[in-house]
Amino acid sequence: MPATAATTATVRSAAAQSGAGGRSPRPGVTLGSDFLQLDIADAPPGGRTAWLADRLRSAIADGRLPVGTRLPASRVLAEELRVTRGVVTEAYRRLSESGQIAGRGRGGTVVVAAPARPAPPTAPSASDRPASPSSPAAGQRAFRPRTPRTPDAFFTASPHRDGLVDALRGLPCRIDLSPGVPDLAAFPRTAWLRAERAVLAAATPADFGYGSPQGAPALRRAVVGWLARNRGIRADPDEVVVVAGVAQALGLLAQLLRADGIDRVAVEDPGSLGARQQLEYGGHTTVPVPVDAGGLDVDALRACGARAVLMTPAHQFPTGVVLDGERRRELLRWAAGGGVVIEDDYDAEHRYDRPPVPALRSLLPDGVCYAGSVSKLLAPALRVGWLLVPPHLRDALVTAKRYADLGNGVLTQLVLARLMDSGELERHLRHVRRRHRKRRDVMLRAVEAHLPGARVHGAAAGLHLMVTFADGPGSRVPDTALAAAALDRGVKAHPLSWHRLTPGPPGLVLGYAAGAAHEIEEGIALIGETLATLPTAT
Amino acid sequence: MPATAATTATVRSAAAQSGAGGRSPRPGVTLGSDFLQLDIADAPPGGRTAWLADRLRSAIADGRLPVGTRLPASRVLAEELRVTRGVVTEAYRRLSESGQIAGRGRGGTVVVAAPARPAPPTAPSASDRPASPSSPAAGQRAFRPRTPRTPDAFFTASPHRDGLVDALRGLPCRIDLSPGVPDLAAFPRTAWLRAERAVLAAATPADFGYGSPQGAPALRRAVVGWLARNRGIRADPDEVVVVAGVAQALGLLAQLLRADGIDRVAVEDPGSLGARQQLEYGGHTTVPVPVDAGGLDVDALRACGARAVLMTPAHQFPTGVVLDGERRRELLRWAAGGGVVIEDDYDAEHRYDRPPVPALRSLLPDGVCYAGSVSKLLAPALRVGWLLVPPHLRDALVTAKRYADLGNGVLTQLVLARLMDSGELERHLRHVRRRHRKRRDVMLRAVEAHLPGARVHGAAAGLHLMVTFADGPGSRVPDTALAAAALDRGVKAHPLSWHRLTPGPPGLVLGYAAGAAHEIEEGIALIGETLATLPTAT
Repeated sequence: MPATAATTATVRSAAAQSGAGGRSPRPGVTLGSDFLQLDIADAPPGGRTAWLADRLRSAIADGRLPVGTRLPASRVLAEELRVTRGVVTEAYRRLSESGQIAGRGRGGTVVVAAPARPAPPTAPSASDRPASPSSPAAGQRAFRPRTPRTPDAFFTASPHRDGLVDALRGLPCRIDLSPGVPDLAAFPRTAWLRAERAVLAAATPADFGYGSPQGAPALRRAVVGWLARNRGIRADPDEVVVVAGVAQALGLLAQLLRADGIDRVAVEDPGSLGARQQLEYGGHTTVPVPVDAGGLDVDALRACGARAVLMTPAHQFPTGVVLDGERRRELLRWAAGGGVVIEDDYDAEHRYDRPPVPALRSLLPDGVCYAGSVSKLLAPALRVGWLLVPPHLRDALVTAKRYADLGNGVLTQLVLARLMDSGELERHLRHVRRRHRKRRDVMLRAVEAHLPGARVHGAAAGLHLMVTFADGPGSRVPDTALAAAALDRGVKAHPLSWHRLTPGPPGLVLGYAAGAAHEIEEGIALIGETLATLPTAT
Repeated sequence: MPATAATTATVRSAAAQSGAGGRSPRPGVTLGSDFLQLDIADAPPGGRTAWLADRLRSAIADGRLPVGTRLPASRVLAEELRVTRGVVTEAYRRLSESGQIAGRGRGGTVVVAAPARPAPPTAPSASDRPASPSSPAAGQRAFRPRTPRTPDAFFTASPHRDGLVDALRGLPCRIDLSPGVPDLAAFPRTAWLRAERAVLAAATPADFGYGSPQGAPALRRAVVGWLARNRGIRADPDEVVVVAGVAQALGLLAQLLRADGIDRVAVEDPGSLGARQQLEYGGHTTVPVPVDAGGLDVDALRACGARAVLMTPAHQFPTGVVLDGERRRELLRWAAGGGVVIEDDYDAEHRYDRPPVPALRSLLPDGVCYAGSVSKLLAPALRVGWLLVPPHLRDALVTAKRYADLGNGVLTQLVLARLMDSGELERHLRHVRRRHRKRRDVMLRAVEAHLPGARVHGAAAGLHLMVTFADGPGSRVPDTALAAAALDRGVKAHPLSWHRLTPGPPGLVLGYAAGAAHEIEEGIALIGETLATLPTAT
């Protein structure tokens, strides 16, 4: 390899070079300092203290060491720079005197003030989630009614705008009735930490390495058990691919379908805006197929000519309809004829009236791509889901997942596998289902009391209600205007029209699972007040 | 919304319906059972015990309840099915008598044997990582020398085969000298768990919800501090996008570049096979540009006409060369003229001789896409990295990340932010650097002792050595044959030719960070023995 000759060496000379050319490293001590990439060789002889103080001063001035940064212990930095400890303590003393750093006892030495040049701004961007405690400018408390950020423009923007749902999530509010989020206050922190401790205790070094892109075998086995017990699906762990939630599942499927020559996917109308956007970003045209009392209209599906359909058969989003027996049979006939069904089983486990219907996948493994996740079972923040595809697509799916991210994070998968195997997740589900049900009842009563003319759909299951306004004041204003005015009063909800591809009566999609009873009560009352004051000019 | 009229109801009737039509639910008790989707309404009157036993029996027989599954407590199942507890205990007793389930004291009632129809096979697939303790058929102990899975065919397969590196990772071995993995045994389990406990204690419910697709603000701030202290980069948290490792960063950049009309990307030759495949999967043609003693040949880059280049300037993979000052200046001129530099800063923090050179990004934020991760700092299993792009690409990047997976898992991000902010990660880096350095020295000595004619490249930094065979027995066999024969003896390493686009002397890429000293010693000795016995027919 002549090209690299100048950097190569025989083994002997490479070994000799392995110290820092000419310097005599002390054994066991790291050479050089990563800290600010300081290199003592740059310091003038006899001027090391001044040099170090100067370097620190510029790093503080130009923002590389922002206020709050803890400096290395003087012993550590001295060792790394190979100077006496006195050089470092003296440099620290000078900066301390000039008020830029300060000793904090066991908290170490900390940057306390930056001179002249201001630190870069740290205001959150629009894509930050303001509800996060670590985001300075936001949080529920920060919401001011009649904020100048007029939500009107936001809601009346094209519903096809990228990341609309996500952007709404980012707006501050006082009461959040967005659909799709479970009771997050119930997250089983203690059980999670206990499982994590067990996972860390049992993990081999290899568990911290690159995992299987298909997912940790332990989690795939646990998912198989979960699907068998809860969704009537019999599967082999090798059929399961662990993904970062249903969103990633749809993105990967969009790729696979396109590789299979499919670029039009039928979607339910009304149906999830987010899911539709996911497919469209993946290069597909989405074709609306109406949903009625029996679920997706399979005749219309057949007529539209799309070779694939994305649907939510166990609990249609947003209507809450369950695909009925006759339609299931028709759909399976369509799939047996070569159609691809993408089954988004997003909240099938949340039923209050009867056991959930078995998944379509349980009836026709070869024609159904099945996607589920822990987002509604446990927490969206975990970003873990699973995808099962027909056998002929499996290898392509694993390849797509590999190139997407080399596989999900392993520790989270192993913790989740423990929670599933131990029955902890089912226990949690039973617990939150009781809480969700009470909150649903609160919302039903509040809608009855405060939203005249509202019709409620899909109350028997899930984490949200859909209401439509067939008459009354709500029927005479666009639902985007209602949602905008409600957000102006601090209450967040989805306008139903966001989730429609063809026009229909106005309405709202109202999540009840995440909020406390009094918030639900107050939120609906505020929407009712809003409704009463809106000019009814459609 | 007339289409759904049959499933709608006025608020009053919806509220009345919210129980299970006609049944009178007991308050506070969940209706219906998720467990096997049992519905007591299916049971014949007076035959509930037999019905339940039968349902359980079939679920065990058809694999929905595999051996080892814990059944719900009889009290819980009885409550859910709304039968007396006696019905459940009697059904359990019958299955227990027939030997299918057994009481395990506080361990509950467990499935112990499946009759007749066998459970589905659970052998790991090729994409499983056999080193995982939870993968039954594998692990280091399971390696048998001269296994019938001949590695020859594997190594001589086209190096452009999808997932080749990944597939090699999946093959069993006794000593793993693959490059790119840090000392995983040193993973700071205690610090991690402590930080996780603090995160769970401090988290608000919103932290368990959908996070910002751009990444948790706390981690973005921590990354900014890290980059300032360790890589000379001054950035604003809003410039940082948290990604699932450098692999995802490359996948997302591949999308952005294509949207910008770029579909040819220059890559270093030799250079990382995995990174090249990532770009190719993303629809790009990769154009080889030679690497010499000064790093990437910028004249050749200019001549090849590609508008973007992927490179590893701080520590070139696999040669270990640092891009020299003159080349850096040339490259920045090229970038200032509109070229896009993708800087894969994969292991810049691991230098043994001097502070790492500052990142290219620190010199030209507007022309450099900068990708880093914790894979080499801490553990690949975490799947966390960061990507900074020029300002005009930032919004498109956030959108691409949103559609990829809605953002990284939040808990892992918050734990990592704590480890970075507290100085724990820097402490860990200092610790492993000492260990890595010793292992490197062991490998250098072993190469000198056992691999005659080997030239060592890139020993001053990183987690691997590159050796080439300019003469001696190693120069007379293809390196794929050597790697295959070595794996046959239980030692895994990368043939250098995998990472070449144009032919060059044979060689190996040998990781030293992950293994213990005696394994490195023995692994290199075994490669030496292999070399001595190979027929030298090239």
